[in-house]
Amino acid sequence: MKNVGIGLALAPLWVSPSWAKEGMFTPDQLQEVSGELKEAGIEIAPDALADLTGFPMGAIVSLGNCSASFVSPEGLVVTNHHCARGSVQFNSTAEKNYLEDGFLAATKGNELPAAPGSRIYVTTRVTDVTARMRAGTTKLDPLERYKIVEQRSKDITAECELDAGYRCQVASFYGGAQYKLMQRLEVRDVRLVYAPADAIGKYGGDIDNWQWPRHTGDFAFYRAYVAPDGSAADFDEANVPYRPKHHLKVSASGLKDGDFVMAAGYPGSTNRYTLLAEVENTFNWTYPTFAVLLQDWINVIEKAAPEGSDARVKYESRLAGLNNFEKNLRGQMEGARRVGLVDRRRSRETALANWIASDGKRAEYGKAISLLETLSEESAQAARSNFWYNNVSRPQLFSAARRLFRLAKEREKPNSERKPGYQDRDMTFFRQGLEVIDRRFDPGVDRAEWLLFLRGYLKQPQEERIAKFDSALGLSAETNDEQLGEILDRYYANTKLGDSETRLELMDATVSELQADDDPFMQLAVAMYDYGQQLEMERDERSGRALALRPTYMDAITKWQRAQDQLTYPDANSTLRITYGKVLGGSPRDGLAYLPFTSLEGITAKDTGEDPFNSPAKQLELIKAKDFGSYTLDSLGSVPVNFLTDLDSTGGNSGSATLNAKAELVGLLFDGTFESVNSDWDFDTRTTRTIHVDSRYMLWVMDKVDGADSLIEEMDIAR
Amino acid sequence: MKNVGIGLALAPLWVSPSWAKEGMFTPDQLQEVSGELKEAGIEIAPDALADLTGFPMGAIVSLGNCSASFVSPEGLVVTNHHCARGSVQFNSTAEKNYLEDGFLAATKGNELPAAPGSRIYVTTRVTDVTARMRAGTTKLDPLERYKIVEQRSKDITAECELDAGYRCQVASFYGGAQYKLMQRLEVRDVRLVYAPADAIGKYGGDIDNWQWPRHTGDFAFYRAYVAPDGSAADFDEANVPYRPKHHLKVSASGLKDGDFVMAAGYPGSTNRYTLLAEVENTFNWTYPTFAVLLQDWINVIEKAAPEGSDARVKYESRLAGLNNFEKNLRGQMEGARRVGLVDRRRSRETALANWIASDGKRAEYGKAISLLETLSEESAQAARSNFWYNNVSRPQLFSAARRLFRLAKEREKPNSERKPGYQDRDMTFFRQGLEVIDRRFDPGVDRAEWLLFLRGYLKQPQEERIAKFDSALGLSAETNDEQLGEILDRYYANTKLGDSETRLELMDATVSELQADDDPFMQLAVAMYDYGQQLEMERDERSGRALALRPTYMDAITKWQRAQDQLTYPDANSTLRITYGKVLGGSPRDGLAYLPFTSLEGITAKDTGEDPFNSPAKQLELIKAKDFGSYTLDSLGSVPVNFLTDLDSTGGNSGSATLNAKAELVGLLFDGTFESVNSDWDFDTRTTRTIHVDSRYMLWVMDKVDGADSLIEEMDIAR
Repeated sequence: MKNVGIGLALAPLWVSPSWAKEGMFTPDQLQEVSGELKEAGIEIAPDALADLTGFPMGAIVSLGNCSASFVSPEGLVVTNHHCARGSVQFNSTAEKNYLEDGFLAATKGNELPAAPGSRIYVTTRVTDVTARMRAGTTKLDPLERYKIVEQRSKDITAECELDAGYRCQVASFYGGAQYKLMQRLEVRDVRLVYAPADAIGKYGGDIDNWQWPRHTGDFAFYRAYVAPDGSAADFDEANVPYRPKHHLKVSASGLKDGDFVMAAGYPGSTNRYTLLAEVENTFNWTYPTFAVLLQDWINVIEKAAPEGSDARVKYESRLAGLNNFEKNLRGQMEGARRVGLVDRRRSRETALANWIASDGKRAEYGKAISLLETLSEESAQAARSNFWYNNVSRPQLFSAARRLFRLAKEREKPNSERKPGYQDRDMTFFRQGLEVIDRRFDPGVDRAEWLLFLRGYLKQPQEERIAKFDSALGLSAETNDEQLGEILDRYYANTKLGDSETRLELMDATVSELQADDDPFMQLAVAMYDYGQQLEMERDERSGRALALRPTYMDAITKWQRAQDQLTYPDANSTLRITYGKVLGGSPRDGLAYLPFTSLEGITAKDTGEDPFNSPAKQLELIKAKDFGSYTLDSLGSVPVNFLTDLDSTGGNSGSATLNAKAELVGLLFDGTFESVNSDWDFDTRTTRTIHVDSRYMLWVMDKVDGADSLIEEMDIAR
Repeated sequence: MKNVGIGLALAPLWVSPSWAKEGMFTPDQLQEVSGELKEAGIEIAPDALADLTGFPMGAIVSLGNCSASFVSPEGLVVTNHHCARGSVQFNSTAEKNYLEDGFLAATKGNELPAAPGSRIYVTTRVTDVTARMRAGTTKLDPLERYKIVEQRSKDITAECELDAGYRCQVASFYGGAQYKLMQRLEVRDVRLVYAPADAIGKYGGDIDNWQWPRHTGDFAFYRAYVAPDGSAADFDEANVPYRPKHHLKVSASGLKDGDFVMAAGYPGSTNRYTLLAEVENTFNWTYPTFAVLLQDWINVIEKAAPEGSDARVKYESRLAGLNNFEKNLRGQMEGARRVGLVDRRRSRETALANWIASDGKRAEYGKAISLLETLSEESAQAARSNFWYNNVSRPQLFSAARRLFRLAKEREKPNSERKPGYQDRDMTFFRQGLEVIDRRFDPGVDRAEWLLFLRGYLKQPQEERIAKFDSALGLSAETNDEQLGEILDRYYANTKLGDSETRLELMDATVSELQADDDPFMQLAVAMYDYGQQLEMERDERSGRALALRPTYMDAITKWQRAQDQLTYPDANSTLRITYGKVLGGSPRDGLAYLPFTSLEGITAKDTGEDPFNSPAKQLELIKAKDFGSYTLDSLGSVPVNFLTDLDSTGGNSGSATLNAKAELVGLLFDGTFESVNSDWDFDTRTTRTIHVDSRYMLWVMDKVDGADSLIEEMDIAR
């Protein structure tokens, strides 16, 4: 509360030339912008960033849904608290509540196994496989094209995974114009080293989610373990810490306002190049429709699982997810209105169309765009017609039955021919998906959810309903709410799928065994299988058409942007990307400004003593005593907690190493502001801001609050 | 959305020397700070501000609850929209909805009479009457002292009001150390000249109330009319515009960030010098207790007057007031926690105690403070014991009955001996208070409110209840909710006080007539009269003690502050005050900053098309077309709408003329930020910010949106 921006002058920032720009660049693209990177202030050679196994990129790893990085020669990995929290929860008991107290392993021997399924993926090789993936696909009909591309992807992956202990992925760039094979060491023995208490790592909780000002200590440490021979292995006492070729130094000096900054991580998915038609369909129909349903869905769960009930405990995570999604959709819609998304997209499309029209040789582009528009309308139509049927498949028992029957069907084929998700390589996660239901399922709530969706389904005009589904479930044009209730009662009274062992046993069942199973959900899954296959085939056929059209469209975009001296980067696809920019506050609304840093004093000011604003007493005392150690930012007169940058990020970037010009770790990327949510569709340089936890706060907490001295010693601290 | 603070540097503003300071100075005090005023940038002679009938102070007027100022030689008065809105509402019909469409009189002949009771008070004379008020009061016992002070105040007022058409007031300063007689011309023919539509004048409504960023066009114009001979008169066609000796020029150039600014108006009440004991009682008991009751009260009204009902229309204003109050209390309590009010007051009190202890001659001060602390505890005790009984008297019918019986009692005495509020000079407003019930009363809601309070009363231990009240209402220790309901049914079935004519007729009834009245509320009022008198006497006795002690305490404060080169100003008391400072943004919270100006584009960004964010289409079009005229602020690149200053203001300041260094009108003060609500108790220079509507926005709306050209022509515009 003590520090105030002086001279909050109103000079129009965005008019002045600014080197900060949108872009989730693939590492090999950075050579193309090396001039700009240097001008922006980078001090390492930009070319170094293209070498994925060199420094610093060799230190950047993926956790699957999060990003992370090595920060010691002994496999110490730093990521967000919210990325490792599942492992803290997994190890917590009523007696040893690590969520509440935090966890710090005194020695390596005290480190705890991470939650089942935890992985650290270390990229070891990236190969361009475009030629093999695309060869001869142009002339095929769409469905055939889709199938062959999918088969080649599986084949290449399988060949790559002949190297035991590696996990491979064929990633598609620019809508299928380019394919790269990523080979990653799959570290399966992941251990929890250190996580501060929720009251630091999750400070502000859902209330502060997507908000600025922010004061979240969103960091935690894992360690990668491998077999003594260096190969990936399951958890074993004999395993040894993995020794990465490279690790990051951790900066104790951090950044100041305006400093160069970059982040390396694995952004999940963006829609920057969607056509106007797709944008309009999403923002005029999909999002508003879903926002309404989400609210109903949340209400139904809250009513069926009242606060304080056992059921509520099981659905906390689902509720948090739905609320998060609801807030996100609201942010998307508000953001779209604010930036004028539809108008901006229309302008871009008009400009592109003019560029195409200005040269007869570009006619092919125009044709592709027109066909993509048709395709987009067809996809939208399919989504609209199947809206309620798709929702009806969401509740967990029906969903489990469908997956199990599908598995039995797929297992009739040789492994290499099975659909992705049903191959041998997928079975660990498939099994975990069935197991986890135990902790997240309550029949009363599942029934209430199903009832909500079925009521929506029944409200549709008869001609929009699916005859097969009606007859399988016993629905008629006259089915009333009471009868619907009786049907559901019968389903939940007679199912055994709520039992974990039953589900797991059914993973080995044959098609005929499942067809003979009298479980009502399994009978329904069997009855709907053909219809599901038909929908999937239609979807694959549309995807096959897109595979031929989108590369052409992206080629047009790339050439058109190049004509304007702009470098086109591919939409996010969970592969390693680099974004660069600077530390920068912003103005989310007229008359309001976000300052670039928050400080320790802001924690005290926010603190109410009640979750999620219940900072540990020790931390509050240290702040009161101004015991800042050597971690202060002079202009702030305090330890910086979180900071803002204009970096380009999205879901999946959580845990990304935030790096200074020397590629030292100055923080971790963990969120975006509410005004940035819409940037997946349209990066608005005026309002998009990414939120990071400052390395000085991380070190201060470790040093002063949690006494994690040995970890600080293990890391290379750049002072 | 286009303009962003560049370089929101984090230099600690409050460490640097700043000339801006708290202080609601009386005009005669400004000579004492003339050096500081000059340093701050004032360009007129500071001494001029002490002359209440000269320029510029002669242009400053009061509307009773609001402040205002003359802006033309023909009696044109500018104030806040929310201060004149009652008059807009009064003149509106379903056909001519001026709230929705705004109102602009094409000619003087089209100006409309303001709502009944509207007044413009023009200060004509201020006389120090301390000697006469205080003479010989020291030795009296407290009750006697209180009575004699009250009687002298009435006598002085009556003498002053022998000048027909004037309204006089004896105001107490520094807790009764100083008394001033204010003589004011009471303009009774007030007419509505111009008010923009609610969608401008009340833009943001209750949602934006006390919020920044703000975009409210909170301005409107009245005109003062007098008899052709210049004397105050009731509305008459023959009346002529009042010609003030002075009026303000209106600036079309306005202010920029950091500019000197001052405001002149009538702040209502502050508690800056309350003792720690009083602060603790208020923030530990009064506010939290009342906050809970307020929430219940709001719920009760909302349930008894459902949305869309006729009753709801009648209670909209009460609900708005209660919600406003609730938000205010929340702000007060949050603010007290944030600034550490109790600790700060304790420090001040300790420092003062040390100063007193350092000199034996100051012992009298210590004694007075100690007695004030005892008094404060007694007052707090009385408030606690009578909490529920006092609330029980709130519903409108019981309250009206009590006032009517009291009036009959007072009317048995000569006019000069009656209690203030019951003298002949008070009868116009007394009558209006009874009339207005018609538009704000519904028996069902009144009953529900009474039930809420009576239930609270009944929940008290028997010994805390009032025997007289119990027996009058027929309550016993065993009265249950059903019986209470029956009592209330009987009251509301048998009362005639819901009828306006009945109430007005009873203004002339004698004590014995009212004693014989079988109206249950009147019977209750009669029964409780003596108890009410007893409480009043106890209150008056405590006030009498305070009258002896507070001047001594304030003398200590004044001398102690003078020893530190600080000028002590008196708490606000609805008399004319001047506050000065500068245009200044701020940081309400760590990591967040308020920019000093909002812009037209912010209106567009906020606009949802729905009340209260439903800007007129014409305004939105003008903004889109960037039709800014000559009203832009260069650094903003747009027309400034509202701005922030560090001025010291409170309720009653609404409508105050905001003046630049030349005393030109650059805006109107209309609100404070949420973080400033607590400043009534403790002016925190870090967070207290006052909100003004910018004269450039006022002129732009008049010029471009509403075509009020003739008014612009009538005023002196400084370009």
